[in-house]
Amino acid sequence: MKKLNVGMIGYGFMARTHSNAYRKVGNFFDLQYEPVLKTVCGLVDAEAAAFARRWGYESHCTDWRKVVEDKNIDIVEVVVPNNYHAEIAIAAAQAGKMVICEKPLALNAPQALQMVEAVEKAGVANFVSFNYRRIPAVTLAKNLIDEGRLGKIFHYRANFLQDWTISTAVPTGGMGTWRLDAKSAGSGVTGDLLAHCIDTALWQNGSIKNVNAMTETFVKERKNAETGKMEPVTIDDACTFFCRFNNGSMGNFESTRYARGHKALYTFEINGEKASIRWDLHDLHRLQYFDHGDASILRGWRSIHVSDADQPYMKHWWVPGLQIGYEHSFVHQIADFLEGLATGNPARPTFRDALETQKVCDAVLKSAKSGQWENVG
Amino acid sequence: MKKLNVGMIGYGFMARTHSNAYRKVGNFFDLQYEPVLKTVCGLVDAEAAAFARRWGYESHCTDWRKVVEDKNIDIVEVVVPNNYHAEIAIAAAQAGKMVICEKPLALNAPQALQMVEAVEKAGVANFVSFNYRRIPAVTLAKNLIDEGRLGKIFHYRANFLQDWTISTAVPTGGMGTWRLDAKSAGSGVTGDLLAHCIDTALWQNGSIKNVNAMTETFVKERKNAETGKMEPVTIDDACTFFCRFNNGSMGNFESTRYARGHKALYTFEINGEKASIRWDLHDLHRLQYFDHGDASILRGWRSIHVSDADQPYMKHWWVPGLQIGYEHSFVHQIADFLEGLATGNPARPTFRDALETQKVCDAVLKSAKSGQWENVG
Amino acid sequence: MKKLNVGMIGYGFMARTHSNAYRKVGNFFDLQYEPVLKTVCGLVDAEAAAFARRWGYESHCTDWRKVVEDKNIDIVEVVVPNNYHAEIAIAAAQAGKMVICEKPLALNAPQALQMVEAVEKAGVANFVSFNYRRIPAVTLAKNLIDEGRLGKIFHYRANFLQDWTISTAVPTGGMGTWRLDAKSAGSGVTGDLLAHCIDTALWQNGSIKNVNAMTETFVKERKNAETGKMEPVTIDDACTFFCRFNNGSMGNFESTRYARGHKALYTFEINGEKASIRWDLHDLHRLQYFDHGDASILRGWRSIHVSDADQPYMKHWWVPGLQIGYEHSFVHQIADFLEGLATGNPARPTFRDALETQKVCDAVLKSAKSGQWENVG
Amino acid sequence: MKKLNVGMIGYGFMARTHSNAYRKVGNFFDLQYEPVLKTVCGLVDAEAAAFARRWGYESHCTDWRKVVEDKNIDIVEVVVPNNYHAEIAIAAAQAGKMVICEKPLALNAPQALQMVEAVEKAGVANFVSFNYRRIPAVTLAKNLIDEGRLGKIFHYRANFLQDWTISTAVPTGGMGTWRLDAKSAGSGVTGDLLAHCIDTALWQNGSIKNVNAMTETFVKERKNAETGKMEPVTIDDACTFFCRFNNGSMGNFESTRYARGHKALYTFEINGEKASIRWDLHDLHRLQYFDHGDASILRGWRSIHVSDADQPYMKHWWVPGLQIGYEHSFVHQIADFLEGLATGNPARPTFRDALETQKVCDAVLKSAKSGQWENVG
Repeated sequence: MKKLNVGMIGYGFMARTHSNAYRKVGNFFDLQYEPVLKTVCGLVDAEAAAFARRWGYESHCTDWRKVVEDKNIDIVEVVVPNNYHAEIAIAAAQAGKMVICEKPLALNAPQALQMVEAVEKAGVANFVSFNYRRIPAVTLAKNLIDEGRLGKIFHYRANFLQDWTISTAVPTGGMGTWRLDAKSAGSGVTGDLLAHCIDTALWQNGSIKNVNAMTETFVKERKNAETGKMEPVTIDDACTFFCRFNNGSMGNFESTRYARGHKALYTFEINGEKASIRWDLHDLHRLQYFDHGDASILRGWRSIHVSDADQPYMKHWWVPGLQIGYEHSFVHQIADFLEGLATGNPARPTFRDALETQKVCDAVLKSAKSGQWENVG
Repeated sequence: MKKLNVGMIGYGFMARTHSNAYRKVGNFFDLQYEPVLKTVCGLVDAEAAAFARRWGYESHCTDWRKVVEDKNIDIVEVVVPNNYHAEIAIAAAQAGKMVICEKPLALNAPQALQMVEAVEKAGVANFVSFNYRRIPAVTLAKNLIDEGRLGKIFHYRANFLQDWTISTAVPTGGMGTWRLDAKSAGSGVTGDLLAHCIDTALWQNGSIKNVNAMTETFVKERKNAETGKMEPVTIDDACTFFCRFNNGSMGNFESTRYARGHKALYTFEINGEKASIRWDLHDLHRLQYFDHGDASILRGWRSIHVSDADQPYMKHWWVPGLQIGYEHSFVHQIADFLEGLATGNPARPTFRDALETQKVCDAVLKSAKSGQWENVG
Repeated sequence: MKKLNVGMIGYGFMARTHSNAYRKVGNFFDLQYEPVLKTVCGLVDAEAAAFARRWGYESHCTDWRKVVEDKNIDIVEVVVPNNYHAEIAIAAAQAGKMVICEKPLALNAPQALQMVEAVEKAGVANFVSFNYRRIPAVTLAKNLIDEGRLGKIFHYRANFLQDWTISTAVPTGGMGTWRLDAKSAGSGVTGDLLAHCIDTALWQNGSIKNVNAMTETFVKERKNAETGKMEPVTIDDACTFFCRFNNGSMGNFESTRYARGHKALYTFEINGEKASIRWDLHDLHRLQYFDHGDASILRGWRSIHVSDADQPYMKHWWVPGLQIGYEHSFVHQIADFLEGLATGNPARPTFRDALETQKVCDAVLKSAKSGQWENVG
Repeated sequence: MKKLNVGMIGYGFMARTHSNAYRKVGNFFDLQYEPVLKTVCGLVDAEAAAFARRWGYESHCTDWRKVVEDKNIDIVEVVVPNNYHAEIAIAAAQAGKMVICEKPLALNAPQALQMVEAVEKAGVANFVSFNYRRIPAVTLAKNLIDEGRLGKIFHYRANFLQDWTISTAVPTGGMGTWRLDAKSAGSGVTGDLLAHCIDTALWQNGSIKNVNAMTETFVKERKNAETGKMEPVTIDDACTFFCRFNNGSMGNFESTRYARGHKALYTFEINGEKASIRWDLHDLHRLQYFDHGDASILRGWRSIHVSDADQPYMKHWWVPGLQIGYEHSFVHQIADFLEGLATGNPARPTFRDALETQKVCDAVLKSAKSGQWENVG
């Protein structure tokens, strides 16, 4: 089994999900590659050291360039705030490393395009961590669409609802709250949350032609966590848009951090001529499915508990009825990434796939400003 | 259209559900008979008068014998406390009236048998108001079983859960609370609530061979509403039993008035070799159905919203998606009763059907005392 | 008890719901007025006669002007296709009749304004049948908002999803399908379905400032039921819009007749600073409620079974746990209308209230054409 | 950090869940002990070797006595068929090892007692893997009861429903199906599934006084997987019992492998004077909670998504709204076991706790034979 040395750049929440995935993947999947947690890199030395100790990295450092230049590193993981993605990923590609980048790929589409060009020019394997594609119920949904079970699609709806910024006391900037600062994050819910919905939608339902959007910033000023001063909030707190897909279906997307009762309620519903499907992240192991082909007196939404061995990824885990959780979507994407290396059929979404999502995000933000329809890139 | 004059004996809760059913049935069903609300009879003259006025009865009285003897009356409705059922129903039968009796039919099986013999000897139409059979979702369940969709049945489970007697301040005896007095009610939850579950079970799953039961009276003493004195509570507050059906399946039944959070939660679940079904009264218009014959990756409990026109009774009401409620089960049973008169194929359950339920109740109460298995009648 | 004679103009689906309401209201509510089903009017004499017989109308006719001019009629009910609302309602008002009109009030806002002016000039009681306000769970939602339990509102979302026109074989025009013809209906889902959502939203969340909308007609041509010829479909099959309410909240509305699995799925969700609520018509007796004020480890969406006697309207019906259905919303509105007459505090929505809904519908349709934000009238 | 060397005896399904737990626990919990996967032992050398390689064990063997006698081993894990538990666990205790044993502890209570005496005489840490106690929602339920939020308990109900033996083609005996052979398993659903329900119930609701049970074996003969011959099925396919708890509440328990639509549906519902709770394994991250103390118009079952950081165990995982799965219950129990070593306050259930569960199982099986009430040991 060939070993692949991983350099993890970042030690926050996402570094945990990715490290956990690397540690578990070989226990559950039969692979030709064995990832090795080589080094972790972050701003504060003591924290990087602690992270390395906890997760079993062989070393740690505070300068990402050292990781990128390290001859022993095969895969560079970019799990830092969005405004650093491009610089690090491009440097890693230029150094001939495989690159796995957190979502959203970049601050905007032009920047994303540079990243695409860099990895493609370097010819290195590349991947963006839109992990929700690999929740088994979501993968099942994709499979059902591809099998033609829904027929012609009329409607695609997706929401991503949270409630963690309702309090005006939540600061902006700083380690935990850089997502409220457009300089670090690029945008608010559009890039952070809707990007997930858009990635899934493009994958399941094809490309989007044009969009019409509305954004809102409910809390106009917040205290900066680092300076202690009040400053204008620069991101979108909420974003709603509708759109036309190129297959003729209508889309309706909404995201907010002001929806009481929802912590991470990513949902989608797709209505086709023959069937409909529905899913939400709070009950991630279930897929709701309505088949108009059922006998009429027996038609009803089926609540499929996606845990049997013939469901996507599930044969690798436990037994029917016993569910997996959020973290497993990261294990699946690493497994698929490594299998893609072995087969030569790269796992998706690549940087180029993520560029398409970025283009939709840009069109959404542009439309929210212009107040009219905008074409997608 | 032939008119049938109704004499309603009782003006309580059940008299309201039956009167409403008579008033509505002709608006929604095409029938050969037209029920006429002729007279209502109850203990207190002013209350009987008010009831008559509200519901459009032509007259009222306080002596049920006058109703039974009235030449103009075709149907006698017995909707009074259980200890009066037998006397009134037998007298009505002897006077040649059709008799519709509230459930449970009698205080016990021997008394029920006398009632059966009376109506059969008189040759009069007779019916017992186990109304839940005629909730459309429940009727659908019965139809699915009869069509063989479940295959061999392994398990039958039913609950009837309430919470209205948890407070020790609820009195016994009196108008609203005669159900807590064994003299009036015969038993507690067994006759009041489990009788419904047993009626449905016998209808859906066939006869019961033997039972093993447990009862409990959580509050041992209550104030008598009429005398104001504390007295021992004589009824079962809760009853659980398991049983063997003659088709080889196992039954598990439970009822209580001490289950916080449940007002009238009648539920059943039936597990067959090929499919399972589940229903509850709090969401009465839905039937849950699991079909093992579905493609394995698409198996899931279907939540069937039983509101389409091809569902039982539903073509008589509104349009798909728009549901009916509790009261409509009474309309359906009157419609079926009247149609049974027209076709000569009597609506069920008859007094004889209800006798079987009574026998199971008797065996349950006997087993709760003996602490061992008891055969049914 | 003062009698009020009702003249029902129309004998279709809505004439049934209204007739049923009139017949039942006195059995369940204590009122100072007694409605009398005096006459029903419709195009085909035999059908009007049959309707009169079934529902107990004293007479029938085929010329609505006779009803309007009849001295004995107190209330004129307008339950005909939308393009006849204005003429009949205005004539009735001019003849001094109270007028109850089906929704939407008119084909457009200018026409609705004429109707408002007519009833206000005549000083007659007037009411529009947006019946969903009076589903107990919906009324409870309104009460919770008015009590301030949600605090500042951030988001209002509503859907009305159906699937009955997916088949290209559904014709346009004719008795059952005039809703697919813009000449009769004014618009498609906007006036038929979104009007309900808008009425509820304005009532619960106040006025709407501006809207941005998108419509789609998925099936471009259908056979005309009367001529048998193919003709262009003139209505909107689906409509999505977002909006700004004047209280600063964002709205997201969607309706379609192309959503497999949904027969009449009217839903709303409202997110406030302190609490959120959610409701849907397929399980109409439940209100979902999330209270952020609950102890943090015990926070969860509550599924309130709105059936206890202290819930809106429920003391008039059965006992806790036993639900009512769709038809009862019509009983409630007649009860409130009659009580409004008695107290001098008119039941809402009046024609003037419904005009506001019409203005939003007009802005939505205008925006769908212009592709940009439009202010509400 | 002190290292503790683990010897895993068994390499089946449960060896996977335990190995995974050992590998993950240190990444998520701050502990004073570091478990080291030292050796794994199983019948077939090649399979033991493969298991060791996959999970990172330093060595493997085929003779469990070598593990028990190995001076380097600190913890012996017994994850083999039930009929081997006693011999191995007793030998390990006598060798001074800590012992962690899969459930059920033994084939019957007398054997369990010998195991208890062995570990207590040896003074070694001991633990039984009733993992469901440590699903966060289940732990929350226990905490709510201990805080008195339910008040006096009236009812305890639990089910464990599966469907995997409905096919008559499922063999008995052999690696995957030793659970169908009473020699290996002791009993059928009683020891395999009801033991889980009983463990949770005793923990949450205290001891059981007496029981009354019924068992059934639906398929009387199956082919032996090793001999290929038909032989009588010796285990209980289904078991139902009711009981009296010593706190005065009634219990109702049921388990079966013949319930279509349920893969591993462990459920419980507890009704107290003040509140009720409900949980099921198919949606394991939710706890249903009904609080009668809520304002009456706002009372409803709360669906608590047990994922916030202040919920049991959850601060160790991801962020609110993102759920964990089945496997994490095993991580939690190892974390608690190791913390118990550190604090001197042993994690529960110990062997002695599990003996109580075994006594209830014995009484249940005895009652099923006698057909009458049996006292618990």
